[in-house]
Amino acid sequence: MDLVWQERFKLRTYDVDFNNRMKISSLFNFMQEAAANSANSLGFGYDQMVAKQLFWVISRAKIEFTTFPALDEEIIVETWPRTIDKLYAIRDFIIYNQDMIEIARATTSWLMINGANMRPQRLNSNQIEVATFEGKIAIETLCEKIEPLAGSNIKTINTVKIGYNDIDINQHVSNVKYVELIFNAFPIDFLRDKQITKFEINFLTESKYDDVLTIKRDQEIEVDATSFYFEAYNQNNKPVVTAMIQ
Amino acid sequence: MDLVWQERFKLRTYDVDFNNRMKISSLFNFMQEAAANSANSLGFGYDQMVAKQLFWVISRAKIEFTTFPALDEEIIVETWPRTIDKLYAIRDFIIYNQDMIEIARATTSWLMINGANMRPQRLNSNQIEVATFEGKIAIETLCEKIEPLAGSNIKTINTVKIGYNDIDINQHVSNVKYVELIFNAFPIDFLRDKQITKFEINFLTESKYDDVLTIKRDQEIEVDATSFYFEAYNQNNKPVVTAMIQ
Repeated sequence: MDLVWQERFKLRTYDVDFNNRMKISSLFNFMQEAAANSANSLGFGYDQMVAKQLFWVISRAKIEFTTFPALDEEIIVETWPRTIDKLYAIRDFIIYNQDMIEIARATTSWLMINGANMRPQRLNSNQIEVATFEGKIAIETLCEKIEPLAGSNIKTINTVKIGYNDIDINQHVSNVKYVELIFNAFPIDFLRDKQITKFEINFLTESKYDDVLTIKRDQEIEVDATSFYFEAYNQNNKPVVTAMIQ
Repeated sequence: MDLVWQERFKLRTYDVDFNNRMKISSLFNFMQEAAANSANSLGFGYDQMVAKQLFWVISRAKIEFTTFPALDEEIIVETWPRTIDKLYAIRDFIIYNQDMIEIARATTSWLMINGANMRPQRLNSNQIEVATFEGKIAIETLCEKIEPLAGSNIKTINTVKIGYNDIDINQHVSNVKYVELIFNAFPIDFLRDKQITKFEINFLTESKYDDVLTIKRDQEIEVDATSFYFEAYNQNNKPVVTAMIQ
């Protein structure tokens, strides 16, 4: 049983931005696709869990970038289940360009949810056995709770109503849509000039159709600043997603 | 030289909606990808035209559906250059499911734009030779100008500001994003119950970053009505896109 899964993806027109650089939201798509296939191949994926009313949700992610590939290039997403940390299953990633040069690394934290009561399950306490590849590590420090820097000046940018294209087969907003929301909240000049080296995200509350999200971020957007904080709240004033761009 | 191009696509999680039916916006992605590859293979694609400052823009599209495939299914997009009609290059499509059962047909109208003055070029008047497969036809009647039905009651739904994720490598809003906007403007109950059999769209004006679009549609949304009209205007009150769902 091979604990390391590799999958190739080609960057289509809709996977690159106005700079002809891979969109981080598209990389998220690819990582989730590879994670799902990896888990299935190891016996703890959707196919094995659905009958037991169990499913995975991603809770936190952290990606470090060196370069961003361009249109028509291919990338290879390598992923493996790294370890278990309390309630979290930790899954790491290394991303390569088509010449197998490393271009990004990521670590992600997942919860196994029981669909009957929507609560996280203690891992390996039921019939689903989660294998791990202890010792193979992409980013040493696990994902942490994201908080604004001390003294940050957070302002409301706009509100966004959740529509048809924002919800997935489970009728929830997909994680990739949150990543899109985050980058939509930043000025285009910033996104043209900024060389992004790190992206962190925490998924806190699910969103459904017709929810209205209030989008907030650091007011001061200067390319020579190092960190840019983002958060979204729903109409019940619950935090939905937080993120940090570096 | 084979005038008919076939390309396979797999429906990933982000290609299906909350009904587990293929999104029309994803089909648009696939059709544009296959069209680009077909044109390249026949000598009138991006690769051959870019040096001459020429490029294709899609002006109109009409798709007729019989069934919508589900998650993890594959589709085969077949496309060919059908004929030339005044300034328009006509390109048709037949879409098959993985068992090669036909599930949709489409006809599309494209303009060849001269990047030097942004005006449409008369076809086959320059060094780019556009081959056509006369006689092979997916939908008999070519795309026409879309207009609201007489007596329609059109109302404004909301406004949408164009952001980072809405623009493509050419710094314009991609056609697929317009398709997303259209379906986002309709109620979820309608999109759950309605069996869509036809989708028509006209692309009228380009949109750029920070443009604000006003979204309008037929006020009466009843599943037993037959046609549903949509239009978007920009901040200069120019029509940007119109569509009809049946």
